[in-house]
Amino acid sequence: MNIRFYHARILIVNEEKQFSLIEGELWVKENRIVYIGEGTEVADTKAAGWDREIDVKGNVLMPGFKNAHTHTAMTFLRSYADDLPLQEWLHKQVFPMEAKLTHEDIYALCRLGILEYLTSGITTGFDMYIDPVAIAKASADCGFRMLQTSGLNDFTQSLEAVEEQFYAINAMSELTGFVLGFHAEYTTGKPLLEGVAALAQKLKSPVWLHNAETQNEVNECKKRYGMTPTQITDALGMYAYGGGGYHCIYFEDKDFEIYKKRGLSAVTCPASNLKLASGIAPVKRFLEEGISMAIGTDGAASNNCLDMFREMFLVSGLAKVRQKDASCVSAEDVLYMATTGGARAMGLTDCDALAVDKKADLIMIDIKQPNMQPENNFVKNIVYSGSKQNVLLTMIDGKILYENNAFAIGIDVEKIYAEANAIIRRMTK
Amino acid sequence: MNIRFYHARILIVNEEKQFSLIEGELWVKENRIVYIGEGTEVADTKAAGWDREIDVKGNVLMPGFKNAHTHTAMTFLRSYADDLPLQEWLHKQVFPMEAKLTHEDIYALCRLGILEYLTSGITTGFDMYIDPVAIAKASADCGFRMLQTSGLNDFTQSLEAVEEQFYAINAMSELTGFVLGFHAEYTTGKPLLEGVAALAQKLKSPVWLHNAETQNEVNECKKRYGMTPTQITDALGMYAYGGGGYHCIYFEDKDFEIYKKRGLSAVTCPASNLKLASGIAPVKRFLEEGISMAIGTDGAASNNCLDMFREMFLVSGLAKVRQKDASCVSAEDVLYMATTGGARAMGLTDCDALAVDKKADLIMIDIKQPNMQPENNFVKNIVYSGSKQNVLLTMIDGKILYENNAFAIGIDVEKIYAEANAIIRRMTK
Repeated sequence: MNIRFYHARILIVNEEKQFSLIEGELWVKENRIVYIGEGTEVADTKAAGWDREIDVKGNVLMPGFKNAHTHTAMTFLRSYADDLPLQEWLHKQVFPMEAKLTHEDIYALCRLGILEYLTSGITTGFDMYIDPVAIAKASADCGFRMLQTSGLNDFTQSLEAVEEQFYAINAMSELTGFVLGFHAEYTTGKPLLEGVAALAQKLKSPVWLHNAETQNEVNECKKRYGMTPTQITDALGMYAYGGGGYHCIYFEDKDFEIYKKRGLSAVTCPASNLKLASGIAPVKRFLEEGISMAIGTDGAASNNCLDMFREMFLVSGLAKVRQKDASCVSAEDVLYMATTGGARAMGLTDCDALAVDKKADLIMIDIKQPNMQPENNFVKNIVYSGSKQNVLLTMIDGKILYENNAFAIGIDVEKIYAEANAIIRRMTK
Repeated sequence: MNIRFYHARILIVNEEKQFSLIEGELWVKENRIVYIGEGTEVADTKAAGWDREIDVKGNVLMPGFKNAHTHTAMTFLRSYADDLPLQEWLHKQVFPMEAKLTHEDIYALCRLGILEYLTSGITTGFDMYIDPVAIAKASADCGFRMLQTSGLNDFTQSLEAVEEQFYAINAMSELTGFVLGFHAEYTTGKPLLEGVAALAQKLKSPVWLHNAETQNEVNECKKRYGMTPTQITDALGMYAYGGGGYHCIYFEDKDFEIYKKRGLSAVTCPASNLKLASGIAPVKRFLEEGISMAIGTDGAASNNCLDMFREMFLVSGLAKVRQKDASCVSAEDVLYMATTGGARAMGLTDCDALAVDKKADLIMIDIKQPNMQPENNFVKNIVYSGSKQNVLLTMIDGKILYENNAFAIGIDVEKIYAEANAIIRRMTK
């Protein structure tokens, strides 16, 4: 499809992480942005052979959000088990239910999560789950861009399976990717950690893990190795090709140094960290150290929604209250993490901004809603006041998958809802 | 208007604060709910003389949210001054700009805030601002239910003016109400505090104030009086007819005792408290003490949006991380605060629930959205996963003011947006 957006305000970003708006047009040919400007170059736009011309009516076009840590298929446990202590939640509710999931279940439940991403303007996910091939298939079938890493640990999967997934998913579709990873230090013994490090060298892959989500996790690791999870994984040579950690709440000085030295990224998941009472990440410090940051929703079992607007407000608000400093972690910092920073942390540098030759992963934000008025500052309005209600359109790889509350992912949404309800009913009867 | 809602799931609450759903119909005659049940009693509903019959399509009808602390007209400062230290924000940005507001400005800016309330399913506000008559007029003209208190302090207004406002606003409309209050202890000297206490006795009114929003506020008060703001106001006899405080973050044991003994209510404003780096309120303790609680957005200058969904998630999430206890302050606790609890704190006991003879202040929640699926638990879905996008309809006093993204408040919304933009442009040029 060749699509012309006109009467738009287009949010661009420079290398100093500063955002600004261009008034004019944005053109998409196939899956790429081919033009951003005043649009005066083409006198007769009909001659350009547009499949669609969309009047943006002065609303904002911006890069789609990058959800840099999630377990998309956990939608089936949304509002199923909440308000429980962490260990009881994990061992008595989550793990036993996950053990009942089939390949087909995961495919179906992933589609439900993708629907929700589209309503929140999320154009890319970074998933970790027990059946990455099912997630990749569901994503490719829906037209959703999904990077994945492995949830490998001592109890599920194997290095051989992960290597197979690496090749299969990277070859499956332009929309699907896979990098190395494992669940967490506390579920993965030293032999397997060493295997991951060796495989990362062989595949030249970044490595990702849940890292320092709780103080207890760090304490136990230090008892085992005299080192934090960051330090032991680095000592094992895990990060020759980069990577990073999810959550990153309980970091020590040396951990920050390692992330800086190795060029690793920290993905913060504020809503999940609140709801599981895990803690508040030191986002201000990460930014001060110049460490790359991104934002994730985590899964619907802990969050319970997959909404980048809520996460963005939380990243800034929680940093402010943690540091007792209302001036730290600005709206601009947060919007960068949620868009360009997220894409770069995931290695997806051709989806990181609205610019010519970049992939057409973009969203349209309705500014004619009360929460976006007056027009004092669009970046702040989006980060501090935005909501799913403001998402008019979500385009991934040049295709419009969500527009005016309607989905175009090749399947009726009622069927997806029915499948998800049937799965949880089957498990709990 | 006589309106029949059918094919509905109707959220009701019992005196043990437990929620449940009834499948069936809800009938509104004029401004009251006249029937909730299976609807089989009327064979030919046409004969009942309905003005409208609305197919709820299995979605949820629930009481509208009560926004128990706000400064509605501060919409003009949304995204105007953020990411600043509290004192600089207040004294260099907020106060100088507020000094430029006219009566007409406040009327116009209040309407913008009301639009946003409607999108978030908020059917009642509890406002404190510099021109309560303008707020009351705007609310009555829009059809919005608005209780107010006074922002009286040593620098603005007077006891005489407040007494006049009390009579005028309580008589203005069934939708407008006024109870006594003052800005805060730190802006109000002892003579005026004594005056408020005397006036409360005379008018038999509750008294409200910003209370213990920052540690510094409490420390300074203790230096002045050897007592916290709660203790000095109680010692002055302020609470003969009840009332309560906004924020209530830095409470001591004796403060909890006073709130309990006097039947006062604590209104928590979590998003504002994060963004201004004020702190996290001890919500778990308030609940354990059996103290009445409600939730407020505070004004758009500090929040920056007026969204009860974000606040509800925060009330629970922040309590969990503050207490390091993922099991505390459940979704049910929070939904009660945001609806029935809020109404009772405000003394509006005929708008506190969906039940026969109550005022018809209700909203319709779209459950056919991905964030509400699967249907594991509606209360948790609404509190932990809900968003403005799920609000299909907002009815106040029997009138539908918002439905399918369109407003019916007697004025074109584009005009409201234009006025708000003109006001901030005039002030900043």
